[in-house]
Amino acid sequence: MNIKTQVIGIAADAKKASHTLAGAPSPVKDAALRKMADELVKNTEFLLDENGKDVRYARDKGLSSALVDRLTLKAETVSGISRGLREVAALPDPVGKVTSLWKRPNGLVVGRMRIPLGVVGIIYESRPNVTADAAALCLKSGNAVILRGGSEAIHSNLAIAGILRRVLEEHGLPEAAVQIIPTTDRKAVHEMLQLEEYIDLIIPRGGEELIRAVVQTSKIPVIKHYKGVCHIYVDAGADLDMALDICMNAKVQRPGVCNAMETLLVHKDAAQAFLPLMAKRYSDAGVLLKGCAETRNILPDIEEAREEDWYAEYLDLVLAVRTVNGLDEAIRHIEKYGSLHTEAIITRDYRNAQRFLNEVNSSTVLVNASTRFSDGFELGLGAEIGISTTKLHAFGPMGVEELTTTKFIVYGDGQVRT
Amino acid sequence: MNIKTQVIGIAADAKKASHTLAGAPSPVKDAALRKMADELVKNTEFLLDENGKDVRYARDKGLSSALVDRLTLKAETVSGISRGLREVAALPDPVGKVTSLWKRPNGLVVGRMRIPLGVVGIIYESRPNVTADAAALCLKSGNAVILRGGSEAIHSNLAIAGILRRVLEEHGLPEAAVQIIPTTDRKAVHEMLQLEEYIDLIIPRGGEELIRAVVQTSKIPVIKHYKGVCHIYVDAGADLDMALDICMNAKVQRPGVCNAMETLLVHKDAAQAFLPLMAKRYSDAGVLLKGCAETRNILPDIEEAREEDWYAEYLDLVLAVRTVNGLDEAIRHIEKYGSLHTEAIITRDYRNAQRFLNEVNSSTVLVNASTRFSDGFELGLGAEIGISTTKLHAFGPMGVEELTTTKFIVYGDGQVRT
Repeated sequence: MNIKTQVIGIAADAKKASHTLAGAPSPVKDAALRKMADELVKNTEFLLDENGKDVRYARDKGLSSALVDRLTLKAETVSGISRGLREVAALPDPVGKVTSLWKRPNGLVVGRMRIPLGVVGIIYESRPNVTADAAALCLKSGNAVILRGGSEAIHSNLAIAGILRRVLEEHGLPEAAVQIIPTTDRKAVHEMLQLEEYIDLIIPRGGEELIRAVVQTSKIPVIKHYKGVCHIYVDAGADLDMALDICMNAKVQRPGVCNAMETLLVHKDAAQAFLPLMAKRYSDAGVLLKGCAETRNILPDIEEAREEDWYAEYLDLVLAVRTVNGLDEAIRHIEKYGSLHTEAIITRDYRNAQRFLNEVNSSTVLVNASTRFSDGFELGLGAEIGISTTKLHAFGPMGVEELTTTKFIVYGDGQVRT
Repeated sequence: MNIKTQVIGIAADAKKASHTLAGAPSPVKDAALRKMADELVKNTEFLLDENGKDVRYARDKGLSSALVDRLTLKAETVSGISRGLREVAALPDPVGKVTSLWKRPNGLVVGRMRIPLGVVGIIYESRPNVTADAAALCLKSGNAVILRGGSEAIHSNLAIAGILRRVLEEHGLPEAAVQIIPTTDRKAVHEMLQLEEYIDLIIPRGGEELIRAVVQTSKIPVIKHYKGVCHIYVDAGADLDMALDICMNAKVQRPGVCNAMETLLVHKDAAQAFLPLMAKRYSDAGVLLKGCAETRNILPDIEEAREEDWYAEYLDLVLAVRTVNGLDEAIRHIEKYGSLHTEAIITRDYRNAQRFLNEVNSSTVLVNASTRFSDGFELGLGAEIGISTTKLHAFGPMGVEELTTTKFIVYGDGQVRT
């Protein structure tokens, strides 16, 4: 069987499974999720064995130690995955929720009800934990899922999916609701991205390059997460201790993630008092600063920021710093250089707080809090399937509700249109 | 200047205008909309003159009388457009609406606020009224719009847009918020569909062929409206008078539109009593019926329905009729042959009504009401920019809210992530 036929078969089975899954009762889905959590832990030894094959292959291939790290499963990774599945089981079921209901003058009662999207395709790198996480979120939201992980993780992914599928079957749910593309041939991805009649949404999880390649090829709608060039603006008169703590947290707590701060904007009236204290704390934490001319008047020892630094997503202990004349200049800077991801203002000024919240149209906008809160769990969505930096369908962190859409439901009593 | 440069210039201007427009106060937008309504009527003579050029050209080109009809503006068309603009002005502003707000255990208050999408591209056939309607809905929702109408309507479209742009300027709003692609060269559409960094959404309004061509080319997300193969299922024990009235309305009141019924499904226990009465009413209205074998046992004079009839969107006084064994078979038929547009059940049975509403995942599902209510105005959205038959971003009729997305807003008090 050639790859195209194989992928079409998988997608057609997924579509069929999605019809059954759309009507699956919440208790059945949740029981299956809890059983999956049990079975993964019970089969830890088997999972670590299968994962071992992938890890050996990856080492032989000379993959970087960071990539091998992400690929490696340990007993505690498996129990972490298992806890995650229990958390998803405990979330409210988004499917069937009527989000609003209103009455028309002719007596029709009209509402919107959440329904699954149908079939979701996930394309990701060699991180086996994503296999279980993504499958769980799709099952919870009534969607069938087709998983295409990095080729280095193929044994791990097939092992995890095998366990999940067995549990689905035991609970009377279609096995085809969770499928792995079982080949490492890259052509399979290309074929998958053509199948708009079977697959409703593609979510790529990985670097900007992966996402651009998927968008370029796909006929299916894609949720895009290009990058996070996140800003914090420290206003004149801000509480300096608060500003120091938040800016420290946003840059240093986990610099390699998309919601870490990449550019710090400081009001010129706050710069003299704030920047030397901040620079000291950053210096102690090993953060390299790059500043504009005015910033370097105050911090003469730091590097000069170039135009490209304002666009940079360092994902590292590096920070661009710019002194600005005020809120308007800060907003214009974010509009020009930002990535629509996450921005925060530190201020005591009521009007500036409101203006920032209203005028900055990034996916998450915060007052007096760290950019690191831009995350599905932290914002209270209960889980996160991804983050969107484009505005169609979802914008910002996506939870299980974002894996649904709404249909109109109409209760009539014989109404006809005149 | 070549076409590519010209289209990029238009799109870049639109993006810039969209930033201003996103913050435009509701009263300013509404005042502009009302003034546009006035100015269009005041300039009726000019509009009819410009439209006359298009109509003469279309006639010379030998366009069908139906197409020339749609292209032709009359004084009452202009006053109809004007009324439409006033209705849009009277709608609530979706921008800035906080759709929900919740508190996290760490004290963060998190909410979702509606914001405009940015720049919307509308691609449509030679119907000058769409120019004003679409521009008004985009202005109301804070989006800049790029309009590309059928080449036969170019004088009419430029005339209408010229008036709208003058009013924008008078109200301190950016003229570039409403732009027409000023060339009839088809290459311009191709260039426009590549500009994902400037244009956030493409809405094609027209036949399935136009939409498929746009989807094929576009790098920008597209709202798709492929077709409406709408079903009504008449259940056993349904109120026959109600069923007769609704089925008559759904097929006959306006057969050429997407929410007209194309296939009638009848429970076998209702068929004997219902079908002869229904056939009589349809016959009086000139409706041609095509039936399955069981239907033709009751109505021997009607044509035989072939497999392709169950997929057909006739858009005409033609109807496919199938007798089914019950609700399950009706749902399976809709799943197989439907287009996810609009389906209705006529029933007195509580459980069947609930099952139909829950299990049929088309964009609009009705109990005891005509499929013709699947329309933005009729469902209470206030207006309609289009109908989506795919599930991403919007599903079903789209009003001004569907021209927005939501961002997360977060009110903090110094919170950092641990």
